[in-house]
Amino acid sequence: MLADDIQALVFDVFGTVVDWRGSVIHEASTLGLAKGIERPWAQFADDWRALYQPAMSWVRDGELPWTTLDALHRMNLEQLLEPYGLADLSEIELEQLNYAWRRLDPWPDTVAGLQRLRERFLLATLSNGNVALMVHLARWAGLPWDAILGAEFSQSYKPQPQTYLRTAEALGLTPEQCLMVSAHNNDLHAARRCGLRTAFVYRRTEHGPDQTTDLAPDSDWDVVAEDFVDLAGQMGC
Amino acid sequence: MLADDIQALVFDVFGTVVDWRGSVIHEASTLGLAKGIERPWAQFADDWRALYQPAMSWVRDGELPWTTLDALHRMNLEQLLEPYGLADLSEIELEQLNYAWRRLDPWPDTVAGLQRLRERFLLATLSNGNVALMVHLARWAGLPWDAILGAEFSQSYKPQPQTYLRTAEALGLTPEQCLMVSAHNNDLHAARRCGLRTAFVYRRTEHGPDQTTDLAPDSDWDVVAEDFVDLAGQMGC
Repeated sequence: MLADDIQALVFDVFGTVVDWRGSVIHEASTLGLAKGIERPWAQFADDWRALYQPAMSWVRDGELPWTTLDALHRMNLEQLLEPYGLADLSEIELEQLNYAWRRLDPWPDTVAGLQRLRERFLLATLSNGNVALMVHLARWAGLPWDAILGAEFSQSYKPQPQTYLRTAEALGLTPEQCLMVSAHNNDLHAARRCGLRTAFVYRRTEHGPDQTTDLAPDSDWDVVAEDFVDLAGQMGC
Repeated sequence: MLADDIQALVFDVFGTVVDWRGSVIHEASTLGLAKGIERPWAQFADDWRALYQPAMSWVRDGELPWTTLDALHRMNLEQLLEPYGLADLSEIELEQLNYAWRRLDPWPDTVAGLQRLRERFLLATLSNGNVALMVHLARWAGLPWDAILGAEFSQSYKPQPQTYLRTAEALGLTPEQCLMVSAHNNDLHAARRCGLRTAFVYRRTEHGPDQTTDLAPDSDWDVVAEDFVDLAGQMGC
């Protein structure tokens, strides 16, 4: 049985563990209300997120030295200030808005599933989020991680192999003893290439009601789960 | 007030948070009893620990590439097998003995103090122990860390400056916003040179009843605490 070979579950976080889109929309809408700024805040969240992969690719390609995701989020936010009427925000207000990514809400099943899984397995982040972001997010959302690993620990961004390999190594495990949990097929393909086992979790509204990507597994992943509670059940917890 | 400037407490672990000596003596004595091997197991614990600094210095000096503390402990253990009658242990028994360092008991005040401190501050390890060791130890002893940082994260062993500096940086903080908690004066001197604030905690029996070192603070540390509960009180928790 798969669960007998696995020692640790390692998690994608944005979209898989927490609802980044709903939470960023909520934060931006609240700020807009307070400031009397009317804009399409769902589009703002999508625009901000759309700058995420290009910014990481500058680091992956060596055009930027190692830069944390907090700092990349801030660089990306600067591009959106003018079009979204936010150019007059104070530095403190800007930092607070940028740290919306440290206050993302978990999906309804997340915490209950993690708590069950933690009774049998080590749980670690394998996210592109930096340590400070992940630590504050864990406190905010009540996520019981044993360790914050992934990008900053390995000084690399997924899907680079070292992000996965260094995370398994830090846990004192072979890649085969780690189960990568993600709502994103491309993340699982990269993890499988490194030898990790794979679990796809459905998050059909990560990108909103009209989501078109990652609606279903596109390969024979080791586990396919409806949510984290289902995942816990399938892993014998 | 100091507590108003501090965002995170970062901890030395061996000796400060957990009683390595009593726990290693306990593990070795139990093994000796099971195997019918009579040896002075307190001396065994002290001999094993005495090899700790020399082994790390090989890494610090570049004579060894990066090597985890789990692996250094194992190298050091090999030297003690013959004199302590352990040469016939199986590989599984050897690994279990080596992992005694993952099953060290906390001091009586440790968990209660950490739980109070965690309500106000981020808590992270700033230990020479590697991630896997620290993760298993946290589970064993019930230590509520927000992050495992220190040596493996920074790929350096204390008292090298980057161990302290990279830990503060990973938390998104300046060194001045971090309070280094240690029962070891030399650890605090190194932390202060990096700009961290300092807290000395008395552990008068870390090295047994006849301890001669670190019996008192040797400088004007920002905090001097009797134990972790006293530390929590002094930090306003």
